[in-house]
Amino acid sequence: MSTKTIKAYGTKSAESDLEQLNINRRSVTAKDVEIDILFCGVCHSDLHFARNDWGMTQYPVVPGHEIVGKVTQVGTGVSKYKVGDLVAVGCLVDSCRSCNNCKDDLEQYCPQWVGTYGGYDKHLNSPTHGGYSEAIVVDEDFVLRVPENLDQAGIAPVLCAGITTWSPLRQWKVGKGSKVAVVGLGGLGHMALKLANALGADVTLFSRSPNKVQDGLDLGAHQVIISTDEAQMEGVMNHFDLIIDTVPYAHDLNPYIGTLATNGTLVVVGYLGPLDPMLVTVPMIMGRRSVAGSLIGGIAETQELLDFCGKHNITSDIEIIKMQDINLAYERMLKSDVHYRFVIDMKSLKK
Amino acid sequence: MSTKTIKAYGTKSAESDLEQLNINRRSVTAKDVEIDILFCGVCHSDLHFARNDWGMTQYPVVPGHEIVGKVTQVGTGVSKYKVGDLVAVGCLVDSCRSCNNCKDDLEQYCPQWVGTYGGYDKHLNSPTHGGYSEAIVVDEDFVLRVPENLDQAGIAPVLCAGITTWSPLRQWKVGKGSKVAVVGLGGLGHMALKLANALGADVTLFSRSPNKVQDGLDLGAHQVIISTDEAQMEGVMNHFDLIIDTVPYAHDLNPYIGTLATNGTLVVVGYLGPLDPMLVTVPMIMGRRSVAGSLIGGIAETQELLDFCGKHNITSDIEIIKMQDINLAYERMLKSDVHYRFVIDMKSLKK
Repeated sequence: MSTKTIKAYGTKSAESDLEQLNINRRSVTAKDVEIDILFCGVCHSDLHFARNDWGMTQYPVVPGHEIVGKVTQVGTGVSKYKVGDLVAVGCLVDSCRSCNNCKDDLEQYCPQWVGTYGGYDKHLNSPTHGGYSEAIVVDEDFVLRVPENLDQAGIAPVLCAGITTWSPLRQWKVGKGSKVAVVGLGGLGHMALKLANALGADVTLFSRSPNKVQDGLDLGAHQVIISTDEAQMEGVMNHFDLIIDTVPYAHDLNPYIGTLATNGTLVVVGYLGPLDPMLVTVPMIMGRRSVAGSLIGGIAETQELLDFCGKHNITSDIEIIKMQDINLAYERMLKSDVHYRFVIDMKSLKK
Repeated sequence: MSTKTIKAYGTKSAESDLEQLNINRRSVTAKDVEIDILFCGVCHSDLHFARNDWGMTQYPVVPGHEIVGKVTQVGTGVSKYKVGDLVAVGCLVDSCRSCNNCKDDLEQYCPQWVGTYGGYDKHLNSPTHGGYSEAIVVDEDFVLRVPENLDQAGIAPVLCAGITTWSPLRQWKVGKGSKVAVVGLGGLGHMALKLANALGADVTLFSRSPNKVQDGLDLGAHQVIISTDEAQMEGVMNHFDLIIDTVPYAHDLNPYIGTLATNGTLVVVGYLGPLDPMLVTVPMIMGRRSVAGSLIGGIAETQELLDFCGKHNITSDIEIIKMQDINLAYERMLKSDVHYRFVIDMKSLKK
């Protein structure tokens, strides 16, 4: 099929810095929307993929799945969007559409879901490329509408960091009076605080660092518990209905389990790997407590979140960077030196 | 307060066999029911307690919390039971009655619940003693009614082995068409098969041993998956809504997690300790799957189960023993040489 060559930023190996390269986007098919990318958030997964930390990267890879842009062209069969619309694309750009998960609006759990990058573009018979690029072409069913009142750069991280915490908040029915705790204050954690607060929950931040107390309170926590302080931890035993654990590395979950109320759940959203040190079943059994995992969110749920953000005027706290600064940004991310998300202004690539 | 001295079986140290000894039961207070014990099931926890495996045993200890008997006396304020009624007592004989758990009929999660043995009898200011005895005195609120149509010995294990599997079946809303798997075929596992089957679920037994296939099918499983057979395991990936894991020692949960459907839960009911080898979050995150714990059940839920057993004519598969054979029974339990529960005929103690 016909393609269009555009500028992007990516890498050809795990050891290389990201650099400018050209990629092909497919021409719009009947159901496709072509989007001029305005902003793209920088997710920790981008870095993992660029460096092949998960052993599944095909090169060259163009990361980016927190995409905000304007519609520049639509296919003949597109009904939801028109040229000029402000839209977004998150972590997935297609799925099988027929499995139980797809039928249940849980495309993120479809065994054949197509990642925005590192997936497989069945039209081009080649890997998908993400939002570190001038433009993207996506089936309208995987395009989201962005409320016009929101900051266009600040909303980008909602497409991954936001939905990753929103989905468990909704799945575990958080609302007014729910007791919610968030572990870790990074890109995901700061969105979790804002969203849980806006849902009316009583919100706690667990942090190891007293330096984060004021930030936590400013971002929506009603209290901050220093997790290394035994007395503070004792004060919240048997307390939380839901804990969202956003920490992206192995750490001890056991101290948090005891702070769950009966029937409470701790949801791991930030860490893929073995639970080291081992999870102990005693506090789980003694209070019917659960440990769960959760992955981003489905398309309908992501639209629900964007609409919720529009209504409550919620965006991410961001630092805008140029595309050319991405390698430096990755180094800063590795040091957690970001408050709380980098967003690339894609004008910098188009010059 | 006045007491009555009765015969019991217990032990005075972790190293000693169980032997006959005398214990005091309190005289019935206004709300008490005195029960002549007919049968008492033998639970693995009895053995753990007798041998101080959990480091919390006070000696002498008289185990037994699967108690069936006849009411012989009631206090002046008792309204639910009368002399001659067929009743049962399970794992708890009191709780605080005012915490949220107690208010929610979840007395088993009350921080102050009183175990049938190894608890604290506030009337006598001494440890509670269990069902390896001639009689017991229990507040009527912690006494259950036994349907008259059921085998009196066979129903005893329902008070612990039964309710421990019933509670998660109910909590996770198992019904017609639910896909339920049971890991391990012992006292708990065989009850889980019977109960899940009677609830209308599609029931699978996971077993490591081909020798257990026929037993599994006879007890209510619709299929038996040999968990060491990779092809069989592959055939049930993404399948189960609920897995009840009854295995009483550390084992690898990870192969089972992948067999859960999206939103599925594996509930650990048999093992207290660290999850060794470590639980890996990847399959949990990739399907919003949970690992939970669950402890016996509340009083109302236990009564619900007894009534359900009466309606469906469900009892445990048992081997009746004399009280004097308890030490041999413990040795056989340690070798899993029991199909599927020992029940003590308490006539043997009364001679």
